[in-house]
Amino acid sequence: MSLERHFSDRAQRMQSLAIREVLRSAARPGVIPFIAGQPAPHLFPAKAIGYQASQVLESKSAEALQYGDTQGYAPLRQWVAGRYPRVNPEQVLTISGSQQALDLTAKLFVSPNDKVIVAAPTYAGALSTYQIYGADYLSVPCDAEGMLPGPLEAAMQQHPRLIYAIPNYMNPTGVCMSLERRQQLVTLAQQYDLLIVEDDPYGELRFEGERLPNLFELAPEHVLYAGSFSKILAPGLRMGWMIVPEWAKEKLMIAKQTADLQSPTYLQYMLAELLEDDFIDHQLGRLRDYYRKQRDMMMAAVDREFPPEASFTRPAGGMFVWCELPAHVNATELLNQALAQNVAYMPGSAFFCDGSGHNTLRLSYTLANEAQINQGIKILGELFKEAIG
Amino acid sequence: MSLERHFSDRAQRMQSLAIREVLRSAARPGVIPFIAGQPAPHLFPAKAIGYQASQVLESKSAEALQYGDTQGYAPLRQWVAGRYPRVNPEQVLTISGSQQALDLTAKLFVSPNDKVIVAAPTYAGALSTYQIYGADYLSVPCDAEGMLPGPLEAAMQQHPRLIYAIPNYMNPTGVCMSLERRQQLVTLAQQYDLLIVEDDPYGELRFEGERLPNLFELAPEHVLYAGSFSKILAPGLRMGWMIVPEWAKEKLMIAKQTADLQSPTYLQYMLAELLEDDFIDHQLGRLRDYYRKQRDMMMAAVDREFPPEASFTRPAGGMFVWCELPAHVNATELLNQALAQNVAYMPGSAFFCDGSGHNTLRLSYTLANEAQINQGIKILGELFKEAIG
Repeated sequence: MSLERHFSDRAQRMQSLAIREVLRSAARPGVIPFIAGQPAPHLFPAKAIGYQASQVLESKSAEALQYGDTQGYAPLRQWVAGRYPRVNPEQVLTISGSQQALDLTAKLFVSPNDKVIVAAPTYAGALSTYQIYGADYLSVPCDAEGMLPGPLEAAMQQHPRLIYAIPNYMNPTGVCMSLERRQQLVTLAQQYDLLIVEDDPYGELRFEGERLPNLFELAPEHVLYAGSFSKILAPGLRMGWMIVPEWAKEKLMIAKQTADLQSPTYLQYMLAELLEDDFIDHQLGRLRDYYRKQRDMMMAAVDREFPPEASFTRPAGGMFVWCELPAHVNATELLNQALAQNVAYMPGSAFFCDGSGHNTLRLSYTLANEAQINQGIKILGELFKEAIG
Repeated sequence: MSLERHFSDRAQRMQSLAIREVLRSAARPGVIPFIAGQPAPHLFPAKAIGYQASQVLESKSAEALQYGDTQGYAPLRQWVAGRYPRVNPEQVLTISGSQQALDLTAKLFVSPNDKVIVAAPTYAGALSTYQIYGADYLSVPCDAEGMLPGPLEAAMQQHPRLIYAIPNYMNPTGVCMSLERRQQLVTLAQQYDLLIVEDDPYGELRFEGERLPNLFELAPEHVLYAGSFSKILAPGLRMGWMIVPEWAKEKLMIAKQTADLQSPTYLQYMLAELLEDDFIDHQLGRLRDYYRKQRDMMMAAVDREFPPEASFTRPAGGMFVWCELPAHVNATELLNQALAQNVAYMPGSAFFCDGSGHNTLRLSYTLANEAQINQGIKILGELFKEAIG
């Protein structure tokens, strides 16, 4: 069989994730689940979704089950627009989860050998998406406020194609970019006339502090913004949205149309009904209260159990704690020992474009209960101490 | 604003459809709807979908609303596999409508200046998808049995990357490829070691005659097959499936994962419940009976009203009648006159990769009622006679 010769360069760049086997092993029952970036399922508004999914077909089945606009169902786009200052529904496009925004922007902007600026570390799904289209990464180190301005400007001077950023409670570190850094980032982007893809699945999961402006609010012409229902309602809907400047809209619509014509009309109608009134405020209240408590439990356990050589973030929102061990510790290798004791975490190297970060790891506090958090962090603390020596 | 300079070559190739304005104008109320390829909404199984969408969240909300497998929900893949001879659920991938199969295969196989074999005419959405990735088309003329073997082999000798085919009741002509042509096509593909993308949204809408084997059943290693729930249940679900050979599966899964992670878990669970027992057989019975009657009404009107200079197809399934007028008649220009009399059809040139076919058009019989069919075809018949002169 020689049909493989027909694979494009794009396909040749696709690499199967070695981590996948580990993830499968970590998914077995009884393993304390610090690994996955999944929302807590008891917080899915299942009754309300089921009710609206049934109701909308009582009154609007002919439209809700038919083909619809590529841009998305107008009442849902209106709802999205209403959640932000100065956004018009005409700037909103409904998409199939915020992951699709990465694929659409890659399709629109990234050609082989184009440079894309990313944080180190950053969301692994973005790295593999842009990489398939041929991106070479310029990686910018971060501190507790986000990407460092010096290295960021140095990267911008290398003629990149776009900048990928997750300003709010980013995956994997949980860091929220400070207002000053946001302003520096967009000012530099404007100065170098560069495009930013702003990925924001976690922005609404804010436990404390003031809401900071999104990048697209600071520089609407330079930012393509992606939001998601995955973390605030349910990921099994695969629904999200983009907010985009006029100059990019038409080509984005063509990219969406050729990708899948449109996102499911049915789910868009269901969401538009579900989100009427103040449904989302109640839902966000429940999520924030629960995840804040989870975060607190995990931080208390980490403070108690982890050795002083381990440094870690204290997220003010989102789902993740990021941990850095001394350079001689390999978190990927250590995972096997953790799994032998039924604890799973995400090794950090998947989040670095150059595969570095072997001494880092990501912990999620969304799924584990209090006993699991205490027990799991204690086990990890002991493993880390032993590995540090 | 010079951010447009960041558009990729891919994006530069995206062209806004001039036809879109016409389509909008044709969508106004009161226009006899021969234009759209939309299923009849009164045949959507709305009650059953609404019931299962609500039920599945009573018992399985934690799974149905969570992230799921990229390949798709196993019981749904099992159902799909059971609909074909000798298909294993492991070969099945659930996707977001069969349009996504075009984007995924384009991503896997098509690079700039690669040649792609298509029928003339063929589905416009395929033409724009592969073209964005840089495809150059080799177009093969068709008769009432499908692509002509002589020109098809000549095209295969020009080192194409893949062949795009719609064997069953194809969009736009309604033609069903004969068994002999299917065998010739796959034999040639095997001989030249070429890949076929088989697009099959209409195969189940068979009004008469025997089921013919799909191309992938004749040459499983050489064919990537795409099926769809859009025409047999409802397009607003945006759900479909692929059946693929082992050698292509892993890269296809990576392409799907970077495109949108997975199709909606919720809709996959709903469908798996809905399709238990013999639901689809009843549904297909209703669809076939209704569309067969619609086809008969339209053919009777066309026989009665169209001038002898107009030739047209007699579909044995699907949704479309294709009409060819004498070469001096321009069906795109004529559409404005038709719209002035409140009748809409789809001009044929959008279905030709080289924009030819100005004297052709597509009629859909899915949405119009009997009076509209009789009146609309009468108006078109008179317009055609006048234009022919």
